[in-house]
Amino acid sequence: MTSGTAPARRRGRPAGSRAGAPETREAILAAARSEFAARGYAKASIRGIARAAGVDPALVHHHFGTKEHLFGAALKFTFAPALETRDILGPGTEGVGERLVRTFLSVWEVPEVRERLIAVIRSALTEEPAAAMLREFVSRELLMRVAAQLDVPDPRLRAELAASHMVGMAVLRYVLQVEPLASADTEQLVALVAPTLQRYLTAAEPTAP
Amino acid sequence: MTSGTAPARRRGRPAGSRAGAPETREAILAAARSEFAARGYAKASIRGIARAAGVDPALVHHHFGTKEHLFGAALKFTFAPALETRDILGPGTEGVGERLVRTFLSVWEVPEVRERLIAVIRSALTEEPAAAMLREFVSRELLMRVAAQLDVPDPRLRAELAASHMVGMAVLRYVLQVEPLASADTEQLVALVAPTLQRYLTAAEPTAP
Repeated sequence: MTSGTAPARRRGRPAGSRAGAPETREAILAAARSEFAARGYAKASIRGIARAAGVDPALVHHHFGTKEHLFGAALKFTFAPALETRDILGPGTEGVGERLVRTFLSVWEVPEVRERLIAVIRSALTEEPAAAMLREFVSRELLMRVAAQLDVPDPRLRAELAASHMVGMAVLRYVLQVEPLASADTEQLVALVAPTLQRYLTAAEPTAP
Repeated sequence: MTSGTAPARRRGRPAGSRAGAPETREAILAAARSEFAARGYAKASIRGIARAAGVDPALVHHHFGTKEHLFGAALKFTFAPALETRDILGPGTEGVGERLVRTFLSVWEVPEVRERLIAVIRSALTEEPAAAMLREFVSRELLMRVAAQLDVPDPRLRAELAASHMVGMAVLRYVLQVEPLASADTEQLVALVAPTLQRYLTAAEPTAP
């Protein structure tokens, strides 16, 4: 395999003065995201990621530690747009289901972002170290943050049920592309799914409609 | 790689008299299921599956055609217990959400079945021919059959939204094993999820609770 799919920018000797700069960290994360997406978790290497970022492998270890931790950081970097929970939970729980599904779909509708998310899902479903990182990431970055703002019994379970619906929707709509969900209008999906999420996140008791 | 993971029974020359027998078909399907699960779609071969089933490769082609079609048949064979939609939809739509999630979880709770289902999901998410077969299988065997019995607008989309929730629940609970869903009591899940499925499958309009 060649490194043809990796970004070719920023090659060459690492500039010592850039070692601690935020743009170095970001260049490593962008390279890591590309390498993990292109090769999968097992085949991506710190050495290859360092080469793609144009830095010394020691600098990658310095910033991120092991490959597992780098994968975790790349995950966080990838999901950053989806982690803007302030806009979703900030205005209170009224309408939270609708804001959540709308934001989720809008993130997935961007082709570049979608490709990255699909690569993450593939790695996590086939390689255990990647699964472990995604598990920790979902628990700590998503469920705990969302659950802290909910006033329902078992808030983390409620948050995870809401997440499970969105994950399944993404798998059938964007990854497997099963019709009619694959081509359904996003507004129709928001209208159908928002009440479900709203119930999980705000209803004291599960009740049949 | 050796064929150590494949079932060792039924090896040897194919008996001409067994060529058309239902048990031959079933032996091939069981071998195919094991081989696809152990090696993934791309690495499994008709030759290896024939060897594991103790029959001639020509007989596999005769019964199932191409590797794609054999994968589809193995899928159907794997999901057979979950396809008993009569028990779920037969008694009418009252309580259908509860019967659906209860049956789904009970199928996944059997460790042997769970392993097979995880193998199918992994193949389908990483290899396009397997994805195509799963897509067709879900559309034709699940959504169309369920949708035919629903009295709601866009019945196939409704059925797929219900399916998406269960798929996502399986991914987080059984594949990635994210807590607290991974250890949640099945009865608690039935109580929480049944009203969602009931709404998708029977409510004329989506409504907030």
